[in-house]
Amino acid sequence: MQLQKRVLPPPPSRDITINKRRLLRDLNAVSRIGIGDHGSVTRLVFSIKELRSRQFLIHQMRQIGLQIHIDRIGNIFGRFAGHHTKTPALLAGSHLDTVLHGGKFDGTMGVIAALEAVRTLKEHKIVLQCPVEVVCFVGEESSRFGYSTLGSSLIAGEIHGKDLAHAVDAQGTKLEDVLANMGIYRNNLRSMRRDPSTIKAYLELHIEQGPILEAKKRPIGVVTSIAAPTRFKVVFTGQADHSGTTPMEMRRDALVAAAELTVALEKVCRRYSHMKKGRVVGTVGTLQIEPGVINAIPGRAELAVDIRSITAEAKQRVVRLVKAHIREIAQRRKIRVEILPLREEDPVPLDKRLIRLLKECCEARNIAYEIMPSGAGHDAMQMAKVTPAGMLFIPSRLGISHSPLEWSEPEDICLGAQLLLDSIVRVANEAI
Amino acid sequence: MQLQKRVLPPPPSRDITINKRRLLRDLNAVSRIGIGDHGSVTRLVFSIKELRSRQFLIHQMRQIGLQIHIDRIGNIFGRFAGHHTKTPALLAGSHLDTVLHGGKFDGTMGVIAALEAVRTLKEHKIVLQCPVEVVCFVGEESSRFGYSTLGSSLIAGEIHGKDLAHAVDAQGTKLEDVLANMGIYRNNLRSMRRDPSTIKAYLELHIEQGPILEAKKRPIGVVTSIAAPTRFKVVFTGQADHSGTTPMEMRRDALVAAAELTVALEKVCRRYSHMKKGRVVGTVGTLQIEPGVINAIPGRAELAVDIRSITAEAKQRVVRLVKAHIREIAQRRKIRVEILPLREEDPVPLDKRLIRLLKECCEARNIAYEIMPSGAGHDAMQMAKVTPAGMLFIPSRLGISHSPLEWSEPEDICLGAQLLLDSIVRVANEAI
Repeated sequence: MQLQKRVLPPPPSRDITINKRRLLRDLNAVSRIGIGDHGSVTRLVFSIKELRSRQFLIHQMRQIGLQIHIDRIGNIFGRFAGHHTKTPALLAGSHLDTVLHGGKFDGTMGVIAALEAVRTLKEHKIVLQCPVEVVCFVGEESSRFGYSTLGSSLIAGEIHGKDLAHAVDAQGTKLEDVLANMGIYRNNLRSMRRDPSTIKAYLELHIEQGPILEAKKRPIGVVTSIAAPTRFKVVFTGQADHSGTTPMEMRRDALVAAAELTVALEKVCRRYSHMKKGRVVGTVGTLQIEPGVINAIPGRAELAVDIRSITAEAKQRVVRLVKAHIREIAQRRKIRVEILPLREEDPVPLDKRLIRLLKECCEARNIAYEIMPSGAGHDAMQMAKVTPAGMLFIPSRLGISHSPLEWSEPEDICLGAQLLLDSIVRVANEAI
Repeated sequence: MQLQKRVLPPPPSRDITINKRRLLRDLNAVSRIGIGDHGSVTRLVFSIKELRSRQFLIHQMRQIGLQIHIDRIGNIFGRFAGHHTKTPALLAGSHLDTVLHGGKFDGTMGVIAALEAVRTLKEHKIVLQCPVEVVCFVGEESSRFGYSTLGSSLIAGEIHGKDLAHAVDAQGTKLEDVLANMGIYRNNLRSMRRDPSTIKAYLELHIEQGPILEAKKRPIGVVTSIAAPTRFKVVFTGQADHSGTTPMEMRRDALVAAAELTVALEKVCRRYSHMKKGRVVGTVGTLQIEPGVINAIPGRAELAVDIRSITAEAKQRVVRLVKAHIREIAQRRKIRVEILPLREEDPVPLDKRLIRLLKECCEARNIAYEIMPSGAGHDAMQMAKVTPAGMLFIPSRLGISHSPLEWSEPEDICLGAQLLLDSIVRVANEAI
């Protein structure tokens, strides 16, 4: 492609800047969709609110004349034509779905920043070498079905039928049934994949969702790799008995078993978090008990474990230790236990050339950046499996996300969007 | 009253026996109201199903010509006139509400057995010295509002406004609002009390809900005292953070705090269960976390603790230890904690003369009985505060209750009902 550079208009100057007011206005508009108590935002995947946020995006894309394609699961691609029409496209974006009572910027900022970048290019009548597609992936958050990066996994060909088996929401709706309603079945999952030869690269701007950038006072993070989770559901089945009449030594209390596991998980992860071989974090994020009444011993406890690390080895060691704990607890308490796999991913390194390019973009604007891994999963994790992928972070106040307290400063958001624009221009115009 | 004995018809002979088929038929009829999976029964207080079971009872009472009185909260009194109409009445009954997915006999058997006893007396044209009232108390189970023995507490004058403050069901409905709809307010709670001078005594037949009678192969238990619960709600408020990006040492995980408490409660109770000074049982029966999604650290955990013992002293010691644990956990983890009292009751001894009378009734029929305390709370606990109260138990298979697996043998049920009839006759005709 570098060959074709000579027949092109001159590369855009460094003075092309995004429209900050417009960017922040659109971000605000999206965050009003699904707003709740304390400024929290709830747009669970496939909910009415999430669909409305996607409609908003489609509307904005239409207004600037992007060519819109929506795939079967609902991923949206808004294409900005390049000088060469048949060459692979550069994709940039993120997701619009949120967790339950989440924040305004997680995902949304990446989509709206990509939209603003392309809008700015159009305004300045810039023609890039290759097409650029603003992307909104469906269902990056696992809040509803316990299944993350749904849309990007689908187009990367990374969803497998067996992964879907235990993905059920709190109302009992099976992800598999939802997908079937869209014409996506176990036997055609692979055919939903997007041909990787149509993609040149993937760029994603996201909030850090962690405390590091703020602590180091850096406005930008260049991401080197993404920690992928191992997730499994644990179901303890003991015996529901009367809480007044059953002596302590005759109980088979499923909740105490779940509590022991929760405490053990923290202990094991704390031990490995201090080791040099790779930090590991582990969380019990959901827990339901039955019958769940004040005067009955819980006979059943179901919980979900999420374990992550940047190094596959450290994570696997923790997973093994935790599973051994689970079996020991069940055996000692004479309680039945099932361990149901939800997701098993290896940590994903991002593209080295893109990391260099993103660093150069920061340096060109004299921005202090941090080279860092991502503890959270992102759509870039799936895209990295089929195309060169790069990610930029901006700081999260107090490291908080997945909460109404999630906050990033407007100037950081605008800087991130500007660097996304800069890097889109370079990636589209250069051979990578 | 003994003075009046000489003007009475001769006391009924020991040959007056209940109609077993009719008793079991009515028990079955009630258990079909609210039946669910695996034969479980759900009639939460003030639910449509619970109201239907009360209507069934009213219908049966009408059929045998009892004089029915329903008080403001919905307690039902079906009065069978005695020789003396102005003397205090003997009350016998229990409750028809159940836990979520409970069993067929808990409460229901006591009500239907009292109905059958009076029906048998009527059939045999027996006239007792004093009136006998078949009683159905509202809301003995705490499943819905975390508040037990609601109806009997009300007529015993034992509900206090402050007790109601934290009584809320899973849908957020406040017990206080439900009561207000019935015209029961904080400022007229005391006036709902039934004048104790109108009650001669209270008798209750109930399933044991524990494993002791079965283990000792005794068909009848004569209850000496009732272990009352201390119940409180604990709310831990930490910080909801992203489960991938928040290092272990920066977390303020409310669920791990709740898990530590759950494990500590079991440990403390196990220690005291082996002491001679009184067994103590402790249970965490409910636990809700927020946000409750797989990829977020729980920022809030709310649970209910139930601690019971036959001796007030042992219970108070455990309560103190557990509360100290809670404060230590919260302090160490830098998590906010609130402890909200739900119920604080002292263990209640039952009436010594009635215990003797119940033993004599068993001996008269040559029945091997067990003298035992009750680990579970019952309406008799409230009634004992205003009138002499006595209780009979029949065995529960495997000690299971509050579960669809709850079961008592029909012959035990019939024997229990017969002894209830025998004791009703004696209590009504004798001075106690």
